[in-house]
Amino acid sequence: MHDQSFDIISLHSAYASGAKPEDVIAECYRRIRANGDPGIFLHLIDEEAALAEAHALGVFDPEAKPLWGIPFAIKDNIDVAGAPTTAACPAFTYRPGADSYVVAKLREAGAIPIGKTNLDQFATGLVGVRTPHPVPKNAIDPEIVPGGSSAGSAVSVALGLVGFSLGTDTAGSGRVPAALNNIVGVKPSLGLLSATGSVPACRTLDTISIFALTAEDGHRVLQAAAGYDPKDAYSRDMPVSPLAPPPEHLRIGVPDANSRKFFGDSAQAESFEAAIEQIKAFGAQIEHIDLTPFYQIAEMLYEGVWVAERNTVVEPLLKTKPDAVHPVIRTIVSKAEGFSATDTFRSFYRMEELRRMARTAMEGLEVLLVPTIPSFCTVKEISEDPIGPNSRLGTYTNFVNLLDLCGVAVPTPTRTDGRPGNVTLLAKAGADALLAGLAAKIHRAADVKLGATDWAYPATEPLAPAAGAREITIAAVGAHMSGLPLNTELTRLGARYLKTTRTDAGYRLYRLAGGPPARPGLVRDEKGASIEVELWAMPEENFGAFMRGIPSPLGIGTVTLECGETTNGFICESAGLDGASDITEYGGWRNFLASLTTTNNHKPITSMQGEQHAEA
Amino acid sequence: MHDQSFDIISLHSAYASGAKPEDVIAECYRRIRANGDPGIFLHLIDEEAALAEAHALGVFDPEAKPLWGIPFAIKDNIDVAGAPTTAACPAFTYRPGADSYVVAKLREAGAIPIGKTNLDQFATGLVGVRTPHPVPKNAIDPEIVPGGSSAGSAVSVALGLVGFSLGTDTAGSGRVPAALNNIVGVKPSLGLLSATGSVPACRTLDTISIFALTAEDGHRVLQAAAGYDPKDAYSRDMPVSPLAPPPEHLRIGVPDANSRKFFGDSAQAESFEAAIEQIKAFGAQIEHIDLTPFYQIAEMLYEGVWVAERNTVVEPLLKTKPDAVHPVIRTIVSKAEGFSATDTFRSFYRMEELRRMARTAMEGLEVLLVPTIPSFCTVKEISEDPIGPNSRLGTYTNFVNLLDLCGVAVPTPTRTDGRPGNVTLLAKAGADALLAGLAAKIHRAADVKLGATDWAYPATEPLAPAAGAREITIAAVGAHMSGLPLNTELTRLGARYLKTTRTDAGYRLYRLAGGPPARPGLVRDEKGASIEVELWAMPEENFGAFMRGIPSPLGIGTVTLECGETTNGFICESAGLDGASDITEYGGWRNFLASLTTTNNHKPITSMQGEQHAEA
Repeated sequence: MHDQSFDIISLHSAYASGAKPEDVIAECYRRIRANGDPGIFLHLIDEEAALAEAHALGVFDPEAKPLWGIPFAIKDNIDVAGAPTTAACPAFTYRPGADSYVVAKLREAGAIPIGKTNLDQFATGLVGVRTPHPVPKNAIDPEIVPGGSSAGSAVSVALGLVGFSLGTDTAGSGRVPAALNNIVGVKPSLGLLSATGSVPACRTLDTISIFALTAEDGHRVLQAAAGYDPKDAYSRDMPVSPLAPPPEHLRIGVPDANSRKFFGDSAQAESFEAAIEQIKAFGAQIEHIDLTPFYQIAEMLYEGVWVAERNTVVEPLLKTKPDAVHPVIRTIVSKAEGFSATDTFRSFYRMEELRRMARTAMEGLEVLLVPTIPSFCTVKEISEDPIGPNSRLGTYTNFVNLLDLCGVAVPTPTRTDGRPGNVTLLAKAGADALLAGLAAKIHRAADVKLGATDWAYPATEPLAPAAGAREITIAAVGAHMSGLPLNTELTRLGARYLKTTRTDAGYRLYRLAGGPPARPGLVRDEKGASIEVELWAMPEENFGAFMRGIPSPLGIGTVTLECGETTNGFICESAGLDGASDITEYGGWRNFLASLTTTNNHKPITSMQGEQHAEA
Repeated sequence: MHDQSFDIISLHSAYASGAKPEDVIAECYRRIRANGDPGIFLHLIDEEAALAEAHALGVFDPEAKPLWGIPFAIKDNIDVAGAPTTAACPAFTYRPGADSYVVAKLREAGAIPIGKTNLDQFATGLVGVRTPHPVPKNAIDPEIVPGGSSAGSAVSVALGLVGFSLGTDTAGSGRVPAALNNIVGVKPSLGLLSATGSVPACRTLDTISIFALTAEDGHRVLQAAAGYDPKDAYSRDMPVSPLAPPPEHLRIGVPDANSRKFFGDSAQAESFEAAIEQIKAFGAQIEHIDLTPFYQIAEMLYEGVWVAERNTVVEPLLKTKPDAVHPVIRTIVSKAEGFSATDTFRSFYRMEELRRMARTAMEGLEVLLVPTIPSFCTVKEISEDPIGPNSRLGTYTNFVNLLDLCGVAVPTPTRTDGRPGNVTLLAKAGADALLAGLAAKIHRAADVKLGATDWAYPATEPLAPAAGAREITIAAVGAHMSGLPLNTELTRLGARYLKTTRTDAGYRLYRLAGGPPARPGLVRDEKGASIEVELWAMPEENFGAFMRGIPSPLGIGTVTLECGETTNGFICESAGLDGASDITEYGGWRNFLASLTTTNNHKPITSMQGEQHAEA
């Protein structure tokens, strides 16, 4: 058990082979004791209680409980029933009677809470040293800050003490410590994880976040933790799609040369350039964008009225026991007194203008790729200047929640100086699963050890492409297929390619009369054949717009695949077959097109685009 | 020309009969002079310039210019090029070089600006008396306040001086004066009308609004004025559907008995009850809801931090020339000084909770029906207490923009005491056209004179039911038709009934094999017949969810109607006809169902619901 990787895939593999969750929990406590860093946990759940919880899980059942037997840590601004919540401020301590919404969901999914972790007090910081308790050591290199504010949560995962952990993220607290400790940081879409039972930092911008050893693990935890909570006014009803391979031809934005900031860290600059090359090798289309409005948004967060959100939490203590608050936090939060309601609204107006500019810059992009941090920060640097290096760490994270983006921080190959490489993937709220799929691909390709451990990324079956919870699968049979003229009708509406497959043997394919454009008709016929189709996943809300472009005699109905499953797809009214040619013998539209190129066998099929063979 | 109604339908009818726009504009200025109230207009556009603009319109073309030749007034917090903008505060005056976005759009649509109208200074008030200029007289009864803040704009329309006017609406300024002057007040969805070139009151809550003599006119102006403006960070890209008859079976919420407030005005209470009866007679389903959270939202607007939004505009003057600000406005706006940024965020958190409660109360409702005002307010009352009666006027209007609702204030039958009856229809942002259609039905049914004039509601052709800009029309041929078992598949996804019609003569209708449920199949066949169908309009974004429920061999394709037009609708794969019965002879599914009731001719068709004849 000493060598057991605590990533979820490996743990579930061990459970499937007969390992006992009690042994995993015991190992978890053993590792915590062996590690001995007093800065990581502020409170440990009673070991006997955790063992009993593990025992009570009964028979291993990962279908019913996707986090069955996984030990996890909880940042100490999130409630666990029976344990004190302190936000790293002893004078603030309260003892919640109930689990926070998210901890309750994770327990329902079979995960087992182990302890409450240290943080920058009131989650105010990106360094992890702003705590009255001992500072947790960075898991990779003790000269580097652990990162914050979710310091203990990140370090506990990176050291393999627990399987995953909860952090929170307002300005980067769920991403910066991931980069500094070589793990994955999932920063969910705002409102996806209920805030009920957690201490706010900036309530309009906060989210609970997830640290995990792998991107797959992070997404599995996200799926278990997410849910609409009527008790949290900021909760959103937003389904989380299952993990799936990312589409190949993503349009991905990266900062242009003028808006990259590395503060002299050339290894980080090189590492980021290499990450872009990797993404290109995946097939992505890279667009260089100007991050200036994003930085202007970030400045407003750090220097503007949003600090008053923190004051709504800390003010009672600041008024009654100012010395109970960490001096750096006191300095920061006290700035709230200088801002009036009028200042606040003026800031909102300016923020809305900047948001408009940033969203315009992101138009047409599915993902924005940035370094997670611009450079590393040492414990020495932050002791000499408690503010400046902290601000720099937030360069690529501060603007994210103000723009309502989701994000995943993921390790990339080790830098030339031996420090962990890191990037963050960002996208519009709701695209969490897309980011997870791409992050998993990047993380696997990085081929690095997990966190500070010797564990490798676990081997698994390749993911099956699948439509998400609010996507409709469409079987394209003709010019809508990839590389053909009408494919943009799918892609412009956000559809993504799943796979190429075939119908069952009960169809005939026709080239309809008329044209150009030539149009295919797929008609059910027991005496037919199996026809090649492409499956595409279309966002459900865009399907109506797609339907508008489908002319008679075509329609959308049900198509049966060779695997026996059915899908929505193109069908054809039989009355539209007058004068059509039966091209069933070609087994698909692509082969039919290829046959039209007659003697020139070297001509690629994609060259047919110019000839406008089209379904519509 | 003296008797010419200035509603748009009547004016366009006159233009179609040869009237000259120059004569209409001249009549407009004659009426303004004849009326002589110095409180209505703060600035008149030079008459010669307006006449020249009318002349330049050329040939009457209401298709290209839907407001061709319509004179309109503009609240003096909205820019018209060349005229001063004052917000009723002479010291605030500036001279804009360009039209506001909305005025420019209206001019493009052929409307002709006549003058800038008086208002409660800085649009702060619902009474119309908070101005340093003479107070405009209420058009109906000079003892009543004109209503505000858009006082002059409302009165100018009610008196028939102009065809329509622009107001603004933050807390009710576009609705309360409509009620007090017996006209229509359109309060568009936030962001639908660009704010570029207008003076904000509360920028996060403001919208430009429209006063019109009829609900039809109001919607026509809205369609012309709306547009996405990249220069306004709060602008939204939201299409405005054309006016259409409202669905019959709307679910409409009304305040329950405990949350109705009339401040002793029993005539208003009776009038509102009569309005509910009228709506019921239209076929609506009435739900009684508790308005308590709505009132709590309203209190926060009046007594809370949002006053700081007004301060962002007025503060420079308050600091340099406090005496230049109306004393009541000064008192109100000065309260902003008492609110900190911390107070502001605390208010936002509370507001978000109240919003959640109010939205929960509105769940499942398409419309909320409220009185526009709880009671009338006299000039004497407001002179004795400048705040209290003003607040009371906003009872049913203050919460609306904070909840991101759209609204239309519309006259109802004259009250028992002779004062104008009034209700406001509210709905979620984007439902402006739905409200306009229902408001038009209510207004016509009220059978009252327009504003303070002797003009009757103009006669027009009944509106043709039509799908909106982001709706898809679906031809239902079987159990999805109204009153049949699967109709809820349409209605639960927001589809609305348009009309019953028939296909062209080229279809056969089958009862498919299998079942129960029995399923119909509509198959194209030149030698077929015309089949009865119902047309339903489905929000485009919900069509994907609808598609999920359609089983093989059915699909959605193109159906040709007897009028020659095509629509999306149910089609059937011919391969699914094995064992089907041809029921084309019945001409439609309803007749087929009726035939199944054999000898009992008295049995209504709807009783077939229990037998679960279904398409799916």
